[in-house]
Amino acid sequence: MAHSSSLPLTFLLILVCHIVEQVNGVWPLPQQRDVSADRYILSPKSFSFTYEKDSAAQSGCFILDAAFKRYFSIIFPDFNDGPALRRYHVWLEPEPFIVSVSVKTRGCDGYPDEDSDESYNLSVSEGQAVLTSVSVWGALRGLESLSQLVYQDDDDAYFINKTEIVDFPRFAFRGLLLDTSRHYLPLHAILKTLDAMAYSKFNVFHWHIVDDPSFPYQSRTFPDLSNKGAFHPFTHIYTQSDVMRVIEHARMRGIRVVPEFDSPGHTQSWGRGQPDLLTPCYKGSTPSGSFGPVNPILDTTYKFMEHLFKEVKSVFPDSYVHIGGDEVSFSCWQSNPDVRTFMENMGFGKDFTKLESFYMESIMNMTAALNKTSIVWQDVFDYHERIPQDTVLEIWKGTTEKYYAEMSRMTKAGHRVLLSAPWYINHISYGQDWRDSYAVRPQNFSGTEEQKKLVIGGEVAMWGEYVDATNLNPRLWPRACAAAERLWSNEEKTLDADLAFPRLEEFRCKLLRRGIQAEPLFVGHCKHEYNDL
Amino acid sequence: MAHSSSLPLTFLLILVCHIVEQVNGVWPLPQQRDVSADRYILSPKSFSFTYEKDSAAQSGCFILDAAFKRYFSIIFPDFNDGPALRRYHVWLEPEPFIVSVSVKTRGCDGYPDEDSDESYNLSVSEGQAVLTSVSVWGALRGLESLSQLVYQDDDDAYFINKTEIVDFPRFAFRGLLLDTSRHYLPLHAILKTLDAMAYSKFNVFHWHIVDDPSFPYQSRTFPDLSNKGAFHPFTHIYTQSDVMRVIEHARMRGIRVVPEFDSPGHTQSWGRGQPDLLTPCYKGSTPSGSFGPVNPILDTTYKFMEHLFKEVKSVFPDSYVHIGGDEVSFSCWQSNPDVRTFMENMGFGKDFTKLESFYMESIMNMTAALNKTSIVWQDVFDYHERIPQDTVLEIWKGTTEKYYAEMSRMTKAGHRVLLSAPWYINHISYGQDWRDSYAVRPQNFSGTEEQKKLVIGGEVAMWGEYVDATNLNPRLWPRACAAAERLWSNEEKTLDADLAFPRLEEFRCKLLRRGIQAEPLFVGHCKHEYNDL
Repeated sequence: MAHSSSLPLTFLLILVCHIVEQVNGVWPLPQQRDVSADRYILSPKSFSFTYEKDSAAQSGCFILDAAFKRYFSIIFPDFNDGPALRRYHVWLEPEPFIVSVSVKTRGCDGYPDEDSDESYNLSVSEGQAVLTSVSVWGALRGLESLSQLVYQDDDDAYFINKTEIVDFPRFAFRGLLLDTSRHYLPLHAILKTLDAMAYSKFNVFHWHIVDDPSFPYQSRTFPDLSNKGAFHPFTHIYTQSDVMRVIEHARMRGIRVVPEFDSPGHTQSWGRGQPDLLTPCYKGSTPSGSFGPVNPILDTTYKFMEHLFKEVKSVFPDSYVHIGGDEVSFSCWQSNPDVRTFMENMGFGKDFTKLESFYMESIMNMTAALNKTSIVWQDVFDYHERIPQDTVLEIWKGTTEKYYAEMSRMTKAGHRVLLSAPWYINHISYGQDWRDSYAVRPQNFSGTEEQKKLVIGGEVAMWGEYVDATNLNPRLWPRACAAAERLWSNEEKTLDADLAFPRLEEFRCKLLRRGIQAEPLFVGHCKHEYNDL
Repeated sequence: MAHSSSLPLTFLLILVCHIVEQVNGVWPLPQQRDVSADRYILSPKSFSFTYEKDSAAQSGCFILDAAFKRYFSIIFPDFNDGPALRRYHVWLEPEPFIVSVSVKTRGCDGYPDEDSDESYNLSVSEGQAVLTSVSVWGALRGLESLSQLVYQDDDDAYFINKTEIVDFPRFAFRGLLLDTSRHYLPLHAILKTLDAMAYSKFNVFHWHIVDDPSFPYQSRTFPDLSNKGAFHPFTHIYTQSDVMRVIEHARMRGIRVVPEFDSPGHTQSWGRGQPDLLTPCYKGSTPSGSFGPVNPILDTTYKFMEHLFKEVKSVFPDSYVHIGGDEVSFSCWQSNPDVRTFMENMGFGKDFTKLESFYMESIMNMTAALNKTSIVWQDVFDYHERIPQDTVLEIWKGTTEKYYAEMSRMTKAGHRVLLSAPWYINHISYGQDWRDSYAVRPQNFSGTEEQKKLVIGGEVAMWGEYVDATNLNPRLWPRACAAAERLWSNEEKTLDADLAFPRLEEFRCKLLRRGIQAEPLFVGHCKHEYNDL
């Protein structure tokens, strides 16, 4: 800053020794944190990451080595600017500061899963930070917290306060959904979202990759699905290489990628590249020319789905797959005489929920045979009591009262559940609507302690009706951060949104500084504004 | 596009000769337009702008020469890409196409004002487009329409259809307000907004430059106003040079810059750099330490305001200045014993609206003495019947019923009015809220034809509580376009939002293509998506 470069050394030292009252917060709030007013000056010149001798991960650990590189630049954002730093270097010989990482178990080239241990302890004292964790995934979370502890004073010097953190997530599944069918999102928009997810400790990217409007996933097995079903067969698709990049970018940040191939509804775009997959709708006794959900009465349908999910298994390493099952309209099935005959033969009468259940059961059997855990939208449970026990149910409908009732019923039936209904943040309104997300209490439904434990987490959903790369980032951030804290932090310590507000404001400025186009929460400014030309 | 580069010539020629049904729309809709299915291929190699012999503007006309440069790149966005074009050049020898411009009056280095004639006629036929207008401002509007008539087919060849347009604005004042006090907007964000305004034929940039939270305007006369009142005295200010750039950028696009220096309320940030300007509030018989609106009882206040508005006059060439006058809280004035004494001496009794009127009258006299037309917010009219006749009243409050009643009263009193209340598009909601803006009918209040004529236009307002450079563009565009069409086009021809929808969708894709981060209106895609890395 122009006005400080001419400060005399004595004045600078006074500045350096001045203890600022407000130290940097961490978002989401760690489970336990003790911060002292003592602080240490940091310099990129004398700052390093290292592995403890007894750590199971050592130099060469892909995931952590890459994280050290990332977090160095995040911690010292001015590093390449030069002049400001050199100023200090002339005057102050910085003490070394070593971040020493110790991981109990190996897994340096692993893939995160539902049982990943993300806990970590972080102890910052003079000249060092000691970060210990069970897994590399916990170490990643600890590095993120560490990076948020570092701050700059008005003179751009870097500091960190003496701090003790014991931290672990409240829920194992902290997801964020992007919808790449209603609008195509360029690869870099997805990668940037993964970056920002890691900053908020989200750990599941739910990729709602295809739907009615378009089929951008370029399938190895069925290339016509994107050739004919994408908005454009070359510019608006995800190649296998694109998908790999997303998965790898996510993995390096401890984020799982759960793809969704939603059927039997939401499949209009599938039909363009896969003849006979969708049910022909009838007007009276003749086909109307339009098509309904996937045709559940043909063997070819199940063969196709089996091939598709085999491919999905080979492409997406996650142990979960989302198979949809929501919002199936029965009118087309009802109009089709072959479907009606099938219903009779199967003894379903006129109850089309039985046909849907029949279909979904077949898909769930397929994914089970592939050793995948299925996630389905709540509709499947609503229609169908005999869902395999390990299927995860995702709640997307209704007011608080209604989703609490649903959670009670589902967990009573022994199912694990994911809560998304109150976090459909594609719905926008004027003002600080993050407060609504923050007020969600995912376990306050009526049920036993055992039932509460079946809530494995939740998901923020950014559906794409009105969202593409032009407005994705400012709609997501920092609004999604509210759910991130609810899913990670201790609820009792984070009930008050007013208390959270200044921390969230500060975190939003950090996001800007990291290149995330996070919108403002209210009147004010950040030292470093978004300034992308 | 990869799949078309290998097309044989014969096939290409078939494509070229194929008449597409849908020709490009123009937004806002011209007053009269006849389009033929005949179309002409355009090539940047053989396309040129020229001045008609009898035109008052000739080569060397700053404003139009600069516009020719701008619109050439807008019309041929692939020009610098090379390969696609060269393809055509090998195969087709393009016929020359000359845009010939004729302007009746000089003014090539002028500044637009309330009487600027923005009408134009545009006639596109084989090998030429003839654009005639009274003023350079009309020529700018015609060039914008021309640029929107050009489209590319699937093979990226450029076309324009035979077209006749007779066009003029419905309202002379078509404004857009940005608020640079609640959040600072970097210069480039303002310049980009001006670009997009020109695409929608907005012609007034209402710069709500200062307010309570910050005073980013760097005053020549009172540098402490921004030194102490800006969010940061170096990074969060508009220097005189910045302001010049904004004015010049706007002028080149036929856009007026009307600055707002809102007082006596909304001035907290002013007080930081100008001691004794604000009213000290009292708690009982002692000052509370906080301050209220501008202190209306001191001579020094009026001297300061006079100096400030003299500077404003010298900096901003527009004949209008916005002097605010909204939302004055009386509680601080009421608490102050000196103010109460002043009230008694003036015979105002306990009616603080009289004090406010007294203050606003003084400011209006100042601006009148400087030959500026004042715009004030409706509050000033509500409190004060004796407003100078040429003061423009801006309506910002209430439902349709209320603002219609206000418009009736104001125009009955002979005042010119600006409508902004239904166009506070900082207020967002889920879905296609542009339809609400589009449904506004600014002259449907009860009143005589003479009264209706006093509606000089309206303004879209993007207040800054929740808006900064991170989300400004997708919130403004294409939502502001709805008001742009309402203010420019014939109302009877644009009543149906469903009819407007495809044209607006197409216009939104054009905005993307021109680098404006305009958000989607609904599910779908543009050939060229926003892809800013």
